[in-house]
Amino acid sequence: MILNKYFEEFELHEVRETGGRTITETDIVIHAGQTGDFFPHHMDAEWCKTQPFKQRMAHGTLIFSVAVGLTAGHINELAMTYGYERLRFTKPVFIGDTIKVKITITALKEHKKPGYGLVTELVETFNQNQELVMVCEHILLAKKKSA
Amino acid sequence: MILNKYFEEFELHEVRETGGRTITETDIVIHAGQTGDFFPHHMDAEWCKTQPFKQRMAHGTLIFSVAVGLTAGHINELAMTYGYERLRFTKPVFIGDTIKVKITITALKEHKKPGYGLVTELVETFNQNQELVMVCEHILLAKKKSA
Amino acid sequence: MILNKYFEEFELHEVRETGGRTITETDIVIHAGQTGDFFPHHMDAEWCKTQPFKQRMAHGTLIFSVAVGLTAGHINELAMTYGYERLRFTKPVFIGDTIKVKITITALKEHKKPGYGLVTELVETFNQNQELVMVCEHILLAKKKSA
Amino acid sequence: MILNKYFEEFELHEVRETGGRTITETDIVIHAGQTGDFFPHHMDAEWCKTQPFKQRMAHGTLIFSVAVGLTAGHINELAMTYGYERLRFTKPVFIGDTIKVKITITALKEHKKPGYGLVTELVETFNQNQELVMVCEHILLAKKKSA
Amino acid sequence: MILNKYFEEFELHEVRETGGRTITETDIVIHAGQTGDFFPHHMDAEWCKTQPFKQRMAHGTLIFSVAVGLTAGHINELAMTYGYERLRFTKPVFIGDTIKVKITITALKEHKKPGYGLVTELVETFNQNQELVMVCEHILLAKKKSA
Amino acid sequence: MILNKYFEEFELHEVRETGGRTITETDIVIHAGQTGDFFPHHMDAEWCKTQPFKQRMAHGTLIFSVAVGLTAGHINELAMTYGYERLRFTKPVFIGDTIKVKITITALKEHKKPGYGLVTELVETFNQNQELVMVCEHILLAKKKSA
Repeated sequence: MILNKYFEEFELHEVRETGGRTITETDIVIHAGQTGDFFPHHMDAEWCKTQPFKQRMAHGTLIFSVAVGLTAGHINELAMTYGYERLRFTKPVFIGDTIKVKITITALKEHKKPGYGLVTELVETFNQNQELVMVCEHILLAKKKSA
Repeated sequence: MILNKYFEEFELHEVRETGGRTITETDIVIHAGQTGDFFPHHMDAEWCKTQPFKQRMAHGTLIFSVAVGLTAGHINELAMTYGYERLRFTKPVFIGDTIKVKITITALKEHKKPGYGLVTELVETFNQNQELVMVCEHILLAKKKSA
Repeated sequence: MILNKYFEEFELHEVRETGGRTITETDIVIHAGQTGDFFPHHMDAEWCKTQPFKQRMAHGTLIFSVAVGLTAGHINELAMTYGYERLRFTKPVFIGDTIKVKITITALKEHKKPGYGLVTELVETFNQNQELVMVCEHILLAKKKSA
Repeated sequence: MILNKYFEEFELHEVRETGGRTITETDIVIHAGQTGDFFPHHMDAEWCKTQPFKQRMAHGTLIFSVAVGLTAGHINELAMTYGYERLRFTKPVFIGDTIKVKITITALKEHKKPGYGLVTELVETFNQNQELVMVCEHILLAKKKSA
Repeated sequence: MILNKYFEEFELHEVRETGGRTITETDIVIHAGQTGDFFPHHMDAEWCKTQPFKQRMAHGTLIFSVAVGLTAGHINELAMTYGYERLRFTKPVFIGDTIKVKITITALKEHKKPGYGLVTELVETFNQNQELVMVCEHILLAKKKSA
Repeated sequence: MILNKYFEEFELHEVRETGGRTITETDIVIHAGQTGDFFPHHMDAEWCKTQPFKQRMAHGTLIFSVAVGLTAGHINELAMTYGYERLRFTKPVFIGDTIKVKITITALKEHKKPGYGLVTELVETFNQNQELVMVCEHILLAKKKSA
């Protein structure tokens, strides 16, 4: 479970992919219940029929949470989340869609805190038709070996 | 429930605040179950005792999801989420903490899509001690009245 | 969120309607889990096929709970629930049905407690075919302005 | 599981009692998620501290649903719910309280539908201190043996 | 609810059957969330399409848990679970299948603990096509009347 | 996620340990809801106070399910569960206990199906005081490399 990795061990353009997860009606109902967001886009199938997308769609925060969860395979004790940037929901995710996440290291930068560097992971989430549904940058603060 | 508002009707420095929500052990267990993130920071009270923070903490994605949910009071049919920027988790949220969200309009910008403008909401989430635990910018794409 | 309203401010025949909510298989499974009511009417699709209604139906207490929840938009600090009367389940609700609630003020009465009056709300719950599935009277104890 | 009982087999003043059920924080969080009722009375421990009751309380619909569920031990194929009357929440139920239900047959009446009678069950719900927290009448439509 | 039964009151070849329970997508999603087992066999409909069974299947531990739960009708204060033997998952259970449990007393043995005997229940779980999907032996330690 | 391993690659006496998981009140409430087992041992804190163990305890099927889930780290496409033997619950697990699983290969046997062997894993579950709370044997049917 633990897979420690120093700043210097991250490689630019390195890519990893997660397994898939089907987004179910249950996920949407539980997410509404967790967040209190019962907007008709997610909870009212009749209203959705009157809209351009015709059917209920997943909450953006559900897709973000599941995507981040899919990437949480190993614990790296030498790095922690610094933040997220440029989070965009590029296409709706519908009930029955299956999402997967592709992570690419797109930047490695110095940080003002001595002994640490910043790793930028591009987090791309695709549906079963290889359409991008969500994208963001995950910034990690990683310890330097040389520190 | 519906409260329509054009781009021109958003005012710079306008502020609104949500009600509070206590983050419970249940929320963390359900969020782990929804995301598949069972990292010991959230699920293993014994391991947490050996760490600097001494106790289980909420997932960042849980705090983000609940905070966004707290702001979902009214539907504005004239605006949609464009994305989120600069998401940071500034302090851990522990079991029993109560969070509230303060939203401030911090920018109103033109957008290349004719008839639309971009509204920037600063989303600040505080715990019961008025400590900032999460902050991000929510960017809305809002229709212009004049369009 | 808070919308205070004195007894005198309620108007006879005043009507409000809620948004819709689709009753999903998930809702039924979670409600069985919450209440411990695993009767085959709700949980055994094979047995239901042998019955006149042919399919699983929602628990009455689920429809009552969701209907009351749909009406919980604003907090009125000047009124509290006194009770419910004449609760009837007039038609079964099946998986995939979408319910909405219509509330009509049908009576305004004096109460023995000085400074308070009783407001009767008729709570009618309809499915997507405008069929009444549940009805009851919600009695509120409301403070008088003149008190 | 099935325990068939005709109208004539119900006896006036007959009493039965259910087992107990502890109302947990989890029950309240799940009920909020099921109903969409996130009122601060149930979800905001900080706000509750400023109120007379000082702590979060269970939703009325949760107590009604659990109480009805506790009584759902056996299926009587010869009777069905006609409705509920005089539902009152007489005391708040707090996290950690344990409720039990006592059912007393209080009336047996003729019904206009030939071959059927109406059974009135008084449903009293008590907490661990034998305080009444909820009461209502459950009306059953029961087949007559003589029909 | 309580139905006390001494060791001597169990009869060899005695059979009882439970009611049915439909295994839903919700059950699988909740079980993944409870156990942390998000294997693609249960959670990734796209991957399942590439496998011989073509669709998502229930976790073995879900079927075992629900089957044991179905048998938990009455409390016998004179017996307790000693253990389970020969647990086998003989066929996959898919979303929408309905399971039932048949319990047969297959052995009654002396136990070294004076005043107690061992009861072996064969626990057979069938789907709606009367196909065996799970089988195990449940061993009970039961008090002797003669003790 | 995938870590393929042939029968010949399992080594007798090989040991691996999982991370820990705290068993919460939420887990018990969700498990009761999933299985329909609302026995007072798990759900009635008042009744438990009158019993030797004084407090609510986790369902055996919950501990078995979570323990099996904790071991589900990697997918081995060359092996599948054949069954479980000698499942025993040796000590109660209470709310707040943290469990961990130790897996030891205790037998490697030939199987009648040509090209396959049987691997026996001893699955020992311990609480935070290193007390054994559950034990069983997990039998795997594993492909032979030489097949």
